[in-house]
Amino acid sequence: MSDDSAPQPRDRVPRDPDDDHSAAAAAMRRQFLRERTGVELTHVGQFSIDPAALPGNIENFTGVAQIPIGVAGPLHINGEHARGDFYVPLATTEGTLVASYNRGMRLLTECGGVRTTVVDDSMQRAPVFVMSDALHGREFGEWIDAHFAEIKAEAESTTRSGALISIGQYAVGPLRYLRFNYTTGDAAGQNMTGKATLAACQWIQEHHPDRPQFILSGSIDTDKKHSQINMLLTRGKRVVAEAVIKREVIKDLMGVDTTTLFWGRQISQAGNFMAASANNGAHAANALAAMFIATGQDAANVAESHAGIVYSQLLDNGDYYWSITLPALIVATYGGGTGLPTQRECLELLGCYGAGKVRKFAEICAAVVLAGDISLSSAVLHGDWVTSHDRLGRNRP
Amino acid sequence: MSDDSAPQPRDRVPRDPDDDHSAAAAAMRRQFLRERTGVELTHVGQFSIDPAALPGNIENFTGVAQIPIGVAGPLHINGEHARGDFYVPLATTEGTLVASYNRGMRLLTECGGVRTTVVDDSMQRAPVFVMSDALHGREFGEWIDAHFAEIKAEAESTTRSGALISIGQYAVGPLRYLRFNYTTGDAAGQNMTGKATLAACQWIQEHHPDRPQFILSGSIDTDKKHSQINMLLTRGKRVVAEAVIKREVIKDLMGVDTTTLFWGRQISQAGNFMAASANNGAHAANALAAMFIATGQDAANVAESHAGIVYSQLLDNGDYYWSITLPALIVATYGGGTGLPTQRECLELLGCYGAGKVRKFAEICAAVVLAGDISLSSAVLHGDWVTSHDRLGRNRP
Amino acid sequence: MSDDSAPQPRDRVPRDPDDDHSAAAAAMRRQFLRERTGVELTHVGQFSIDPAALPGNIENFTGVAQIPIGVAGPLHINGEHARGDFYVPLATTEGTLVASYNRGMRLLTECGGVRTTVVDDSMQRAPVFVMSDALHGREFGEWIDAHFAEIKAEAESTTRSGALISIGQYAVGPLRYLRFNYTTGDAAGQNMTGKATLAACQWIQEHHPDRPQFILSGSIDTDKKHSQINMLLTRGKRVVAEAVIKREVIKDLMGVDTTTLFWGRQISQAGNFMAASANNGAHAANALAAMFIATGQDAANVAESHAGIVYSQLLDNGDYYWSITLPALIVATYGGGTGLPTQRECLELLGCYGAGKVRKFAEICAAVVLAGDISLSSAVLHGDWVTSHDRLGRNRP
Amino acid sequence: MSDDSAPQPRDRVPRDPDDDHSAAAAAMRRQFLRERTGVELTHVGQFSIDPAALPGNIENFTGVAQIPIGVAGPLHINGEHARGDFYVPLATTEGTLVASYNRGMRLLTECGGVRTTVVDDSMQRAPVFVMSDALHGREFGEWIDAHFAEIKAEAESTTRSGALISIGQYAVGPLRYLRFNYTTGDAAGQNMTGKATLAACQWIQEHHPDRPQFILSGSIDTDKKHSQINMLLTRGKRVVAEAVIKREVIKDLMGVDTTTLFWGRQISQAGNFMAASANNGAHAANALAAMFIATGQDAANVAESHAGIVYSQLLDNGDYYWSITLPALIVATYGGGTGLPTQRECLELLGCYGAGKVRKFAEICAAVVLAGDISLSSAVLHGDWVTSHDRLGRNRP
Repeated sequence: MSDDSAPQPRDRVPRDPDDDHSAAAAAMRRQFLRERTGVELTHVGQFSIDPAALPGNIENFTGVAQIPIGVAGPLHINGEHARGDFYVPLATTEGTLVASYNRGMRLLTECGGVRTTVVDDSMQRAPVFVMSDALHGREFGEWIDAHFAEIKAEAESTTRSGALISIGQYAVGPLRYLRFNYTTGDAAGQNMTGKATLAACQWIQEHHPDRPQFILSGSIDTDKKHSQINMLLTRGKRVVAEAVIKREVIKDLMGVDTTTLFWGRQISQAGNFMAASANNGAHAANALAAMFIATGQDAANVAESHAGIVYSQLLDNGDYYWSITLPALIVATYGGGTGLPTQRECLELLGCYGAGKVRKFAEICAAVVLAGDISLSSAVLHGDWVTSHDRLGRNRP
Repeated sequence: MSDDSAPQPRDRVPRDPDDDHSAAAAAMRRQFLRERTGVELTHVGQFSIDPAALPGNIENFTGVAQIPIGVAGPLHINGEHARGDFYVPLATTEGTLVASYNRGMRLLTECGGVRTTVVDDSMQRAPVFVMSDALHGREFGEWIDAHFAEIKAEAESTTRSGALISIGQYAVGPLRYLRFNYTTGDAAGQNMTGKATLAACQWIQEHHPDRPQFILSGSIDTDKKHSQINMLLTRGKRVVAEAVIKREVIKDLMGVDTTTLFWGRQISQAGNFMAASANNGAHAANALAAMFIATGQDAANVAESHAGIVYSQLLDNGDYYWSITLPALIVATYGGGTGLPTQRECLELLGCYGAGKVRKFAEICAAVVLAGDISLSSAVLHGDWVTSHDRLGRNRP
Repeated sequence: MSDDSAPQPRDRVPRDPDDDHSAAAAAMRRQFLRERTGVELTHVGQFSIDPAALPGNIENFTGVAQIPIGVAGPLHINGEHARGDFYVPLATTEGTLVASYNRGMRLLTECGGVRTTVVDDSMQRAPVFVMSDALHGREFGEWIDAHFAEIKAEAESTTRSGALISIGQYAVGPLRYLRFNYTTGDAAGQNMTGKATLAACQWIQEHHPDRPQFILSGSIDTDKKHSQINMLLTRGKRVVAEAVIKREVIKDLMGVDTTTLFWGRQISQAGNFMAASANNGAHAANALAAMFIATGQDAANVAESHAGIVYSQLLDNGDYYWSITLPALIVATYGGGTGLPTQRECLELLGCYGAGKVRKFAEICAAVVLAGDISLSSAVLHGDWVTSHDRLGRNRP
Repeated sequence: MSDDSAPQPRDRVPRDPDDDHSAAAAAMRRQFLRERTGVELTHVGQFSIDPAALPGNIENFTGVAQIPIGVAGPLHINGEHARGDFYVPLATTEGTLVASYNRGMRLLTECGGVRTTVVDDSMQRAPVFVMSDALHGREFGEWIDAHFAEIKAEAESTTRSGALISIGQYAVGPLRYLRFNYTTGDAAGQNMTGKATLAACQWIQEHHPDRPQFILSGSIDTDKKHSQINMLLTRGKRVVAEAVIKREVIKDLMGVDTTTLFWGRQISQAGNFMAASANNGAHAANALAAMFIATGQDAANVAESHAGIVYSQLLDNGDYYWSITLPALIVATYGGGTGLPTQRECLELLGCYGAGKVRKFAEICAAVVLAGDISLSSAVLHGDWVTSHDRLGRNRP
């Protein structure tokens, strides 16, 4: 390609240096795009939210995506923080999804509800220090342990709500990967932990006699990525939803016997193990993507959050104990997109907007995942999976 | 719990049996929710889309999530299907994201653009047949191979645009997992392949002498889940974006040298390998979630789609060859949410709405991922990662 | 370090250029080592095997390791190739191992024996071709498919017993990894497939218009390494052992109920999935290492061969169906170490020496693995795991 | 099968209740086997070791496997514990192996030797406690942390050389997997940690108010199995070998340039990542199996020990920094098979027999792995891989 392929200033998306988060700036950009592509962004340009609220959420604001919200429920939850009946907003364009979750919620509610617990809570930034050899790496690791208090103080000097809990160490050759584990209050905490860890690393670099080089991420924080380290060691919330499915109720509502479900479970476990999938349950990503979009979560975190471990037992009385553990659920009720108008309303619908609510929200997420997994697993075994999509998912023009 | 916890009919989300996809039905549900939760869904209730267009996309429609869209670009692409300069709509609530992708796009464009190629195309449904023992399983597998033509005909009788290309076989004990691989035209194809595979399985069950039992999914289709089988054998589009980063350009724009980038690359590869992460690149999920929401893709497919394999080399002249392969990109330009108003406009902005466009769209997705990976990797190494988030991501109330 | 650290010729292990595989050459080397280390290799120097038989098996032959062999059995097998009662030689230095496998064999035999089946057979060499970009890589892949017959002929021209069955293709950026799948008769086949694939690659390089560069291994053959590609796509033999454990028999012999075993199975499956282990059974490597050493297999192949997938069901009558699938069992009854004296005797003990026996041997391996998994799983649940090691494993000086 | 398939007492392998570890008992068993199979175990019956030394190492002792030992070296090591030139005994039946390692050792020695470091040391037993629900599981976990001192005391009451360092916790539903991390002196420690953990678990069960049920292994110790938890969190020794390969030396000895090696390294890293292999180096299992057999290690531990992470950089002067980290090397210089005659001699040859030697031995293992990886990687790139096997591996009768 010739050099003239470089974008000329006139081709760059225009910005208003004085007030770029405004309806006028958005309109200017839509006009710019229309001139270059011929496309009218008519619907994109219709929104009720105030662009002035968007700094910190988006650059080059041009309009909005309107994502349909369906509400499923009630889902009865007997959690530590989430207690009662919940109506759950699901933003999706996939037919059948809301109906299927609704069905699972009804089943769980008729069985007495879902028990939910946040069993761990940890957000990371994972820098790597590059030492001269493995021996210096090991000694550096000991130095880190010995100076944890100072490192913690330095990290926490940058944040009101974050707390550095521990630093995991992982040695590869001369490299020392450090995994800083924080609690982050009601925020998801990726930025907070990044800033705190940068301060900590700079302190380490200044105070360690080797003045070691570091990179702020050595990739084992696995931000926006599924990983086995997340599965084992938690990222965000590790949250469990568990329920006892009554044999008669699921037979009535779903048409499947618990013994059939458990038989099928052995088969799906073998398949998931062989495929090395991120979740040996059914389809957590469906619940999470729909809830994340509705409530202002970072939808890219579906990548981490959809990991899951199902553990179940068929009980002597024929009832079916079913649990799912989400080891890397990344959610917030404060910061990020949670304060935007429709997002905030959806969090409020769940009683989860603002400070002190994030564990409650995490519990609801897990309970909804469980509802959907039971519904889909039953549909697959009962044989109405395809027919229901045929009925509810005819979405072709 | 007592039985009275079961939801009473009056608690169920109300539906209008005559016309449930209407503004009135949505308003009725908002009213219902307000009565039970006290929450006004004011902004959720404001939308320009026509509810009558939503059957097939959502049940219990109640309103919309408004997700801000920022536009980044131009990004110059020299693909097989995507050719020219593109302005990319990104729906997100995460500050810095649009700016960072914009920066990467500028770099790539100034370096001559991104080359993109769809190297494989395959959507699956993966049933499992349960045989009496492993020997019967093996013989069943041979029978499947011998009857591929009939199975293909049966599967394809259910669809206009899907074609069954091959059936992979995976034996575990007496189980025979079959992975049906289809091309699905411009649709993502999960429902199409489910329906086609059900027909095929019923045909198999009727014609095989053992009348074997099957489950329509044995879990190795790993729908809505990352898995290693996807990484190896493709799910959806396997698409590559590659570029040669000119040493001087990245030094000018990002402030990092290509030798530093390549040095850091060795470190991040070791980290990703140790962590068993789904992607040894940086943060594909950010690009994909934002593009998926904007363009009506199924956002839950971020789970599969964010997988990636970076392969790079430092060239003799100091330029840097960088490629990313997305092995499981699941996208559509037809069906699902692609026809909804804002979503369709965003696809049109990319010249990707409708039939015959899906490979073009897949190529653009991969190119955008590459832009973001370069931008983030550079920021991490240059040290402006945290400061830029501090500047652009101050989103707390 | 100074240059004088380089080994002087007088420090190199001496060889006899005329007859290096002789007792005299071995004695010369032991003398050399004694002079440099002061260590007498008295027992190492005692062997009944003829050094003249060792070319092709070892260089710098110095003596032998004497590994104790214990025999376990009889194990009743109802396989396709292995039929009858087998006494199994296990070479190990780990107390309890033979006793534990013996116990499991007795259980299986009393339950009617083990059913075994080789369900797939495939040895690989996996070269990678480096193309100019991904598009050329895709076209190269199509060219490979179109020229499969010629490639097969070229590969097979180098071998009497190997046959090229298929070539899998895996695209990453501009790279085309090719996985050549062979059957290799009664040999394990790593060298045979290396030689055949080299010939094929040279033919490809000469005949493809781009004269593409290749590396004979792109690492996805994962030789001497566990990998998920082996788990999914087989390396060596994919072999299944399955049995129905009678409730009364295991209760009598092991003291555990099948319901307890199945309960524990749910727990170990969750653990293995979370840990991403290579085998969701118990300890296949113990059986395989002991059998491999006794019978002249390549013990390094324990790395691949120990992978496994257990699939089990509790039957209505309380009996317990248990299967294990070894997806990457690499064994031979011909070539390598199989012809050495003690090794050959141990193969003969199993009726597995020489041509036409490799599937029989693979079946026996899987059956022994199953016996050991049942014995250990029962011991763990019954609580006699530690006590039996205490009784049989007191091996401290 | 009819009941008469159960082994009759006369079919069981005979034991001598008075003195089963004797030459006479072994001869009796060989006679028994000859009667049933017609096979003479002539060579198996020839050994110099004293059967009376074998209690604790084997049951049903019948004879020995004679495994040829070749010696490679000298290998110069500049380790923390291993220092100087080493001659390494390799027990194998695979032609080319000793020659290839020998070549790599010469290269490393001429480049100044290998630096080695044990960076972590941890052996596990990982029980699981089954609580009533996830909340009780979390509280149980807090109780474990609060009672660590008592648990440690109880565990350590069973062992002289083991020390409980920490207990990792992994929650799945109501299950609490505990990973007990020990140092185990010069023993590998699997039995020691089993016994200590059993005592600890019994103490926990007695003292925790819920009297919780436990299983001594919940499978995440991944004994005799590769796993990602081992890769991340170490099992046995985590040991690093690193060296700077001089450009001129490898060019001279191997015929490859360091730039070619580094180019190939990028390709093999992508392949290993895609395949999810246990080691992104070349073939650690070859070195480890051969050393383990020679020195009385548990050869089944090749399953865990062969995992590895290569990290390398091309230096500005064209030299090549190469490191390999073995995260799960399980070795002993005391107990198990280390005291048997040939095994002890081989340990003595390395100066590694007995107490206080295990880290030295671990360092040598890693250095040998590095030597073999460099030799094989060079051979693959230089093109003499197949030809050398053809020359040294002609082992067919």
